[in-house]
Amino acid sequence: MADPAPAPERRLRARELGIPLGRYRPGRFNAITDVAGVKVGHCTLVHGAGPLQPGRGPVRTGVTCILPNPTNVFEERVVGGGFILNGAGEVSGLTQLMEWGLIETPIFLTNTLSVGAVSDAAVKWMVERYPGIGGEHDVIIPLVGECDDSWLNDIAGGHVHEEHVRQAIETAADGPVPEGNVGGGTGMITCDFKAGIGTASRKLPQALGGYTVGVLVMSNFGVMRQLRVGGLPVGELLEPRYASLPRRVNNYGSIIAVVATDAPLITHQLNRLAKRAALGVGRVGSSAMHGSGEIMLAFSTANMVPRQTRKMVYRVKILLDQRLDPLYEAVIEATEEAILNALCMAEDMEGVNGNLSRALPLHEVRAMASHWQRLVAGGRRGQD
Amino acid sequence: MADPAPAPERRLRARELGIPLGRYRPGRFNAITDVAGVKVGHCTLVHGAGPLQPGRGPVRTGVTCILPNPTNVFEERVVGGGFILNGAGEVSGLTQLMEWGLIETPIFLTNTLSVGAVSDAAVKWMVERYPGIGGEHDVIIPLVGECDDSWLNDIAGGHVHEEHVRQAIETAADGPVPEGNVGGGTGMITCDFKAGIGTASRKLPQALGGYTVGVLVMSNFGVMRQLRVGGLPVGELLEPRYASLPRRVNNYGSIIAVVATDAPLITHQLNRLAKRAALGVGRVGSSAMHGSGEIMLAFSTANMVPRQTRKMVYRVKILLDQRLDPLYEAVIEATEEAILNALCMAEDMEGVNGNLSRALPLHEVRAMASHWQRLVAGGRRGQD
Amino acid sequence: MADPAPAPERRLRARELGIPLGRYRPGRFNAITDVAGVKVGHCTLVHGAGPLQPGRGPVRTGVTCILPNPTNVFEERVVGGGFILNGAGEVSGLTQLMEWGLIETPIFLTNTLSVGAVSDAAVKWMVERYPGIGGEHDVIIPLVGECDDSWLNDIAGGHVHEEHVRQAIETAADGPVPEGNVGGGTGMITCDFKAGIGTASRKLPQALGGYTVGVLVMSNFGVMRQLRVGGLPVGELLEPRYASLPRRVNNYGSIIAVVATDAPLITHQLNRLAKRAALGVGRVGSSAMHGSGEIMLAFSTANMVPRQTRKMVYRVKILLDQRLDPLYEAVIEATEEAILNALCMAEDMEGVNGNLSRALPLHEVRAMASHWQRLVAGGRRGQD
Amino acid sequence: MADPAPAPERRLRARELGIPLGRYRPGRFNAITDVAGVKVGHCTLVHGAGPLQPGRGPVRTGVTCILPNPTNVFEERVVGGGFILNGAGEVSGLTQLMEWGLIETPIFLTNTLSVGAVSDAAVKWMVERYPGIGGEHDVIIPLVGECDDSWLNDIAGGHVHEEHVRQAIETAADGPVPEGNVGGGTGMITCDFKAGIGTASRKLPQALGGYTVGVLVMSNFGVMRQLRVGGLPVGELLEPRYASLPRRVNNYGSIIAVVATDAPLITHQLNRLAKRAALGVGRVGSSAMHGSGEIMLAFSTANMVPRQTRKMVYRVKILLDQRLDPLYEAVIEATEEAILNALCMAEDMEGVNGNLSRALPLHEVRAMASHWQRLVAGGRRGQD
Repeated sequence: MADPAPAPERRLRARELGIPLGRYRPGRFNAITDVAGVKVGHCTLVHGAGPLQPGRGPVRTGVTCILPNPTNVFEERVVGGGFILNGAGEVSGLTQLMEWGLIETPIFLTNTLSVGAVSDAAVKWMVERYPGIGGEHDVIIPLVGECDDSWLNDIAGGHVHEEHVRQAIETAADGPVPEGNVGGGTGMITCDFKAGIGTASRKLPQALGGYTVGVLVMSNFGVMRQLRVGGLPVGELLEPRYASLPRRVNNYGSIIAVVATDAPLITHQLNRLAKRAALGVGRVGSSAMHGSGEIMLAFSTANMVPRQTRKMVYRVKILLDQRLDPLYEAVIEATEEAILNALCMAEDMEGVNGNLSRALPLHEVRAMASHWQRLVAGGRRGQD
Repeated sequence: MADPAPAPERRLRARELGIPLGRYRPGRFNAITDVAGVKVGHCTLVHGAGPLQPGRGPVRTGVTCILPNPTNVFEERVVGGGFILNGAGEVSGLTQLMEWGLIETPIFLTNTLSVGAVSDAAVKWMVERYPGIGGEHDVIIPLVGECDDSWLNDIAGGHVHEEHVRQAIETAADGPVPEGNVGGGTGMITCDFKAGIGTASRKLPQALGGYTVGVLVMSNFGVMRQLRVGGLPVGELLEPRYASLPRRVNNYGSIIAVVATDAPLITHQLNRLAKRAALGVGRVGSSAMHGSGEIMLAFSTANMVPRQTRKMVYRVKILLDQRLDPLYEAVIEATEEAILNALCMAEDMEGVNGNLSRALPLHEVRAMASHWQRLVAGGRRGQD
Repeated sequence: MADPAPAPERRLRARELGIPLGRYRPGRFNAITDVAGVKVGHCTLVHGAGPLQPGRGPVRTGVTCILPNPTNVFEERVVGGGFILNGAGEVSGLTQLMEWGLIETPIFLTNTLSVGAVSDAAVKWMVERYPGIGGEHDVIIPLVGECDDSWLNDIAGGHVHEEHVRQAIETAADGPVPEGNVGGGTGMITCDFKAGIGTASRKLPQALGGYTVGVLVMSNFGVMRQLRVGGLPVGELLEPRYASLPRRVNNYGSIIAVVATDAPLITHQLNRLAKRAALGVGRVGSSAMHGSGEIMLAFSTANMVPRQTRKMVYRVKILLDQRLDPLYEAVIEATEEAILNALCMAEDMEGVNGNLSRALPLHEVRAMASHWQRLVAGGRRGQD
Repeated sequence: MADPAPAPERRLRARELGIPLGRYRPGRFNAITDVAGVKVGHCTLVHGAGPLQPGRGPVRTGVTCILPNPTNVFEERVVGGGFILNGAGEVSGLTQLMEWGLIETPIFLTNTLSVGAVSDAAVKWMVERYPGIGGEHDVIIPLVGECDDSWLNDIAGGHVHEEHVRQAIETAADGPVPEGNVGGGTGMITCDFKAGIGTASRKLPQALGGYTVGVLVMSNFGVMRQLRVGGLPVGELLEPRYASLPRRVNNYGSIIAVVATDAPLITHQLNRLAKRAALGVGRVGSSAMHGSGEIMLAFSTANMVPRQTRKMVYRVKILLDQRLDPLYEAVIEATEEAILNALCMAEDMEGVNGNLSRALPLHEVRAMASHWQRLVAGGRRGQD
């Protein structure tokens, strides 16, 4: 095999490649942090090389933390919802989120076998920060999502510790979000190319409410031939050229998508929004494989629900259901772009047993996008 | 506006246009009837023209009937399941199907306001045919799905009668299935082009089980700019050229998809299969709009469950879950192709108040597919 | 067998028998109509006697209609939700209710094989009353629930017609609600005694919000030994005494429960309220049998959602989730009492083939309640 | 206040008190272990007294472990299902169980804030025992359920460690199951009386299949006035006599119920079985309070599904749906009795800050049961 990408490419976000990415414009950072108040932090763990030595490495994993309300998500809970496209995965705390429609902890993303450790560390952090927990008969169940990074990472080695969870929380920031091989996404793979964390956003025009939608994904699903980039069946084109590349054989892939918005939505609307994130995953080519955990969360920062109050009722604004369609499209577009950003920003990574996950070849994607744009332009001029 | 499609085109199925339609091969008829034993019948109602005169017309509607087990679906029930992508629609009987995981009536498709009339007619037909119903304390709840054809049809006029339901049942046949402006799909529209009934199938290679999957849709969702054909964002390209065409403004669109297979699946597997049909709908561009009823049914003909038996247990073969992935991909592909077949086979139709729904311009689709195929071929030769 | 109830008893509501029925007080009429604005109408069909002659009778059935918003439920929709305890039954329109969380038609109750006819008649009535339906691309899907009355009624005979549906709508009234052998409940049976329609309500103390909860049931489930009255296992006691009574053998029983409240609840709260109605059904002894359709609807009259509006958002009051518990208890209590009212108010009925459904023997129930009350009083005095 | 139970009572199981507990007979041990192959182990942690010192105690908690398949649940997975009555709680791994319908880890029960620690320990144990996990790209998500024991236990103190999880697994045994203040149930309370772990079983007559159903609960829900014992509203009677007892004010109660059976059931049947366990919980008085996590799991030991196989299909026996009703009743009965066993077997416990949870006064329950039995006997003789 001739190496299909001999020289390292500078990584770019999908939008910079000319890929058609829908009708709505992204927000300032094209990131989930475009929703005011949302912060993201990563702790990335990369060390060791060579054969798998369980408990010693190599380590290619981490933790990502999303703060839906950076001041006090425990006391001022955000309204949330979710959807399970394929449930061969885990978001601890999802049951309570679906019952109450509230999020009252940060959202964590990590590898499958570290869910317990991250949950335990999150409990300790929250107990420290909110002394009422436990002592005043109030408990919390942290939201911890996972994907399987075992093709690159010593997943059973127990390498994610309390300090890493704290670091992800404490470094959480607004502004641009690091993508690719970072945080919980460090060892993740999508459609046989290296992926990980990706994010994107959309800002609706004022006439449609002016709301912002942001999506962050930890992306780890699919096989190469399924990959569609901006609709174009790029995977079919690349498949024969990468036929000899080693790749993971059991595709226990998955994706966790987190949707944030400042639109004033209630829980059953957010459940519906989360379902549209699944359609965005489908656009990139997912068939929601049997072994795949494809779980979507959604929250709105517009209406906080206080934990402690003497009131009987609270007053909220709610977006009329018949105004939801632009948000649905925005979620689909942002999810698609977030996944593509994970693919476009991740670099080659070598992990356990020398397994090498290649980055998506951007020059080829760019060339195809360019061909398509010319075709569209020609079509618009009637020259088809 | 210059008329964008001046001469009537001969309608073709999507596959004949060179559109990329996935990796698995279709069955003999590329239709739901490729699943042995499944039959389809239509009753098409087209009469009248001009302004809407409620109760008099114009009439552009009908009934489609799918027989999952043509010999005796009441006594030998097929295993079934379902999934609701967006529930702003109706499949009467869905609650029982989801509870029992069994189908014991034919499946009917019609317009929204005729669900009651079709259900009532189906009850009368089954009572006649199976005298035990009612008299021996056994009842049935027919499966009747709907979409809204009111842009072309006098939907509130009550034009679907018992005789039409009987005709759809009694003309049900195996072999090729009429598509486009027929049966329940007569007045349906998809992505602002005329659509209606479409069907497609896939036959897995023997190494993957050799199973057949067939899908039939009554397709009525979406807006033009969302349309993707074989992944290609064709709607974006056509949108500016059809900007001046009149189109329905409230997109109470929807789609009912029926998946049939001879793979030996049980109910919770069929629910999962039905969910993949939703991913197929998403591939064609659906954002599952607020007002859209996008409901998927699935059934397997491999294991019949008898109504009357003295036995305690029954013995079945079940496909191992880890063998499901090819079926998932087959369902997505066949759903996508079934919708495209509805679009490609439907012809222009003028309905109430002179509303004109245009057929998808096949020559333009063919040109784009051809461009893309050349691009792929070039890419494979490394000439990108 | 000595006839266990030789002389006809005057029927009484459960509360008049001294049965312990919970902690909260009922509203003025102890009926769903205690929720301001809710109206109920019945059309009762009883004619013929003797052997079943399909299509001719005997007829023991009808239609019950609940108007959630008596002025204009189509334009001013009420917020709704639902829960399926066992789905071997049908409420047409439930899918849309669960998706949108809105009710925009009256709620109808009838026999299983008349769902289509009632739905069709409801469409005709709504089309007449709201001319926008159909003509302006707006459609409706009526809510029609059912139970199986075939042990007493010629259920396959098609005896429910459009005029009966209109009569149920047009006679809908506030105030006391006829119970027992009326409307959709005419031919229904519960725990082997004659039942049918029952209703009850609770009014919370002002300190808990002062809200009213009303429940109406069409009750048709269970077998005698399961019957619990106010907790007391009365069925076990009565079973041996009624051993020789003929009774239906296939218990395709079921119950439709409709919960109304003026508490300001949103959809996901109403789904939860509906689930508590299922616990109320369980208290009377239901094991939610395989063949039973036990479906619960709930709606709030506090927040209407307009169909046509130019607004982007609407403002609502919402009850804080942590204030829900008294409503949950009120729903359980009112559901239990509504079922018992159906049993206590229904009279003996003879139907097809001379099948005789006996009324619950009130004197025996009263005697047991009285024993228990003495026991409780003794316990409170410490004389146990 | 005169102490209502001055002398410690010997604890007895509910059945020994003469409480009416349904129609089917229990198995040999009246425990979940009556289902062949099922084992249960507890690790109970009780130390310290006096004021809460976070991180130091007092400690009143533990871990319970249920082995659905004691030989190798990882390789020979049992078919499972579940139901959420109220989801303000957590069973980690539930999402995958509901998707796949398989159980491939032991089931653990502990306190809310130890879910992460127990999950982490379970992962470590499984990685040791099944070396393929992690190294061969196979992962697991342990099933860990929780209730809140913070009224008696230093729940935020992190007192459950890896060794305790191992102890619960390694001491798992068949035969009689310790009940009350043991394992995960050590600090749990039900209807304001001390409760914890309880179990019960039913064996169907041979004519109904001869199957065994076993239920184990960790019971922690409700308030005193709701308590019903064998149907009798005992809570109402006890409430005034215990009015001055201190009790927890925020009832973040909950219950985890695990149903085991040797009946050959598939997933969607087990989901339905789990729902009937919720009806059993309702019979004891639960209104499924807002803050309550009431989650039910169910599994069948009859059909194992291999993890590794080259086969395409497997063959199973399935119980015909129309034979499910006796199992439904058995589940309701066994769930009710398991909760009552937790109440009847638990002893007084003093925990953090001297909080005292009193045991259910058995002599009073026995007296009421005895009164009722005489009433029933009188009724049967016609002497009411």
